[in-house]
Parts: sequence; C-alpha cells; structure tokens
Amino acid sequence: MPRVQVVENVMKANDQIAAQNRRFLDEKKVLAVNLMASPGAGKTSFVMRTIETVRDHMRVAAVEGDTASQVDADRVATAGVPVIQINTGGGCRLDANMVRPALEQLPLDEIDLLLIENVGNLVCPAGLALGEHLNVVISSLPEGDDKPYKYPGIFMAVDAVVINKIDLLPYLEFDVAAFRELVAGLNPKARIFEVSCKTGAGLDQWVEWLIGLHPGIKAHG
Amino acid sequence: MPRVQVVENVMKANDQIAAQNRRFLDEKKVLAVNLMASPGAGKTSFVMRTIETVRDHMRVAAVEGDTASQVDADRVATAGVPVIQINTGGGCRLDANMVRPALEQLPLDEIDLLLIENVGNLVCPAGLALGEHLNVVISSLPEGDDKPYKYPGIFMAVDAVVINKIDLLPYLEFDVAAFRELVAGLNPKARIFEVSCKTGAGLDQWVEWLIGLHPGIKAHG
Repeated sequence: MPRVQVVENVMKANDQIAAQNRRFLDEKKVLAVNLMASPGAGKTSFVMRTIETVRDHMRVAAVEGDTASQVDADRVATAGVPVIQINTGGGCRLDANMVRPALEQLPLDEIDLLLIENVGNLVCPAGLALGEHLNVVISSLPEGDDKPYKYPGIFMAVDAVVINKIDLLPYLEFDVAAFRELVAGLNPKARIFEVSCKTGAGLDQWVEWLIGLHPGIKAHG
Repeated sequence: MPRVQVVENVMKANDQIAAQNRRFLDEKKVLAVNLMASPGAGKTSFVMRTIETVRDHMRVAAVEGDTASQVDADRVATAGVPVIQINTGGGCRLDANMVRPALEQLPLDEIDLLLIENVGNLVCPAGLALGEHLNVVISSLPEGDDKPYKYPGIFMAVDAVVINKIDLLPYLEFDVAAFRELVAGLNPKARIFEVSCKTGAGLDQWVEWLIGLHPGIKAHG
C-alpha cells in the first residue's frame, strides 16, 4: 500500500517537527495557541482584541496563516506586536514545518503568548499539530448553531470554543444553549467563551483563562 | 518524483470521471451546478430558495456533501425533491467519484437542474471538477468583504458569485462595491447576484440566469 505509506510518513514527519516546535516554545516559556475557524468568523479581529485585552499582563506575538495575501499580518502589525505572515500557496492549513521558520524569526525571549492564526477552514487544520499548547476553534453566530454537528472533527480536537459575533444575536436565529449542548456532547472538556470582537464583550474571561494556563509569565521592564 | 506523480494521476483520474459524469448529465439534459462556500454561508438555504423559486419552470434534484451527518439532505427532502447525501468521512470536498453513484441513483430523466452542495470550504473544492456545468461560490455578508482577496483561487474558478445574507447590511460593515471590484479584478466574467435567503430577495435574477443557460428544459406533465 504505497500511497497509505506516504501519508503516514508525512504525518509522522509533521508530528516530529511539531514536537520540536513545542520543545522550543517550552524552553522560551511561550504559550502557543492555534486559532482555527471558517473564513470570516473573525479570527484576525479576535487576535487584535486578545492583544489589546492581555497587553498589561503578557507580551504577544502572532503568526498569520493565509492561502494568499498579507492583509492580516499588516492589520495585526498595527497593534505594535511582532508578526510573521505565512502564505500556504493555496494550501488549506498550516503545518509544523511552515511554522518552524516563523518561530526562529520571532523574538520569543521577550514574548509570553504566541497566537497562530490558521487558514480559514473547518476541516483541514483539525488535528494537525503545529507545536501549539492550546487548540481553539472560533465559531461565529452567522454560521449557524449546527456547525459542531456538521464539522465534528474540529470541535472534538480543541481545548476551547469561542462563540464570536454574539452582538448579532438579536438579528439572527441562533440557539446558544443548543450550540453549547452540541459542543458538550462532542467534547465535554472544551471551555466555551461567548465574545463580541465588535464590542469587546467576553474577552476578559478568555484572557483570564490564558493567563491561568501560562507556565511562567516573564517580568517585563 | 514519485509523490508528484501520484498527485497527477489522482487529478487525471478525477478529471476523467468528471468528464464521464458530465457526458451523462448532458445526455439526460440536466444542468448541474456545483455550489461552494464557507461553512455557514447559507448553501442549504440557497438550495431551498432556488428549488422554491424555480419549481414552476424546472424540476430539481440535489446532492448534499458534508463531512458527517445528513441534516442538509433531510432538510432539502422536505422540499419534495429527490436528494442524495454524500458523506466524505472527514474529507474537505466532494470529488467526481463520490458524485458518480449519486447520479446513477437520481431520476435524471425527470430532472432539469441538479444542485450539488459541496463541503463547506473556500480552499479544497476550488477547481476540482465533479461533472458540473456551472461553478458558483456563495459568500455571505458576515464573512467580510475581503474574502476574494484572501481566497482568490475559488473566486477565479467560478462562473458566478452569490452575495448572501444581504438583509444583514444595516448591521455589518460590508462594502458591496469594494467586494464587487475585488471579484471583477480576479474574474471579470463572473456574474454577481445579491440575495437574501431569509427574505427571498434577489433569487429571481439568479433563477432567470439558470433558466437562460439551460440547454433544453423538459416538458413536465
């Protein structure tokens, strides 16, 4: 079965590089978060709001993954944090080997938190390790409350689910309780945060959770 | 280069089966539309509205692609049209070989229009032929007006772009003119339709376009 063999080798190679990335991040005491979502769920806005909310407590850097363009990196750079854009050249997700050179270029000795924005996709990035400590999926209200049912793989593979665009609740038919039940059924340990990147609501709880999980925040001058 | 070889063979095999599917659809005088979009852009609602709007003119069948579950097929079946669910088992798009058995099961002699709802994804389905005559991407307002810039591959590969959830315009920052300009820059020949599957707005123009492209609608008793 030569083709299966190839796939297994590729996955194994990725996992080895991901483990190296993670050891490197551990040495540097950097907590790394892999942010996944559909296109347009608000990943970049969430990165921006997280930076703004956490900046008195932790220093942040970002890796922005996209199939093309560097609009996201340009936008995140306006927040005054180090940022690296990775273009996958049409590929539907980041992998550990793409992230490695970004880690070498970022000033990780001065950083506590690395936000890695994956390519907009609810299928491909699920379960492919980059070296992160936390996997998070952002699901936005306009996408509908049935997404965990239709894309179970990614909802089962994460540590937290962020429900974004909660400010649109009055204008949409979205059953928050039903959504929470679906997530709990697939992944009972996943934390769920309800946020609005437009108003800033709910960001405090998310950031408190990150701070609580950090192994040792650096003293910054 | 054995790995490149494998990829080329897989693509070639898909294209051959897609060509067979298309010949079969041509013989049966069925116009087939491949509908692609992000998760939650409103693909199934668009299928439902299209069926409702076109039903006095054409008979419709549907193929529903998902990574898991059959909620979409169950929903489309309530419209009283033949529908086949294809589960990709985690795969991020349909391919021609998955669609083939569905074509054999559907009563194509009594059908004029086949709507194929692909897996929710703006990367994987782009450019992979299923046998369809028309490729359409649905982009919904909450996803933001920069999607053509960030996922150019799919916007370049389509015959039409549907802007869905236009009813949410008062609540969102979405520049319709800027979006249209981005699409025109990537794909000047693509038709653009502004619709709301909530209110039904814009569906008439879309259906008129389909009717105009049909090679020979059957007389139905």
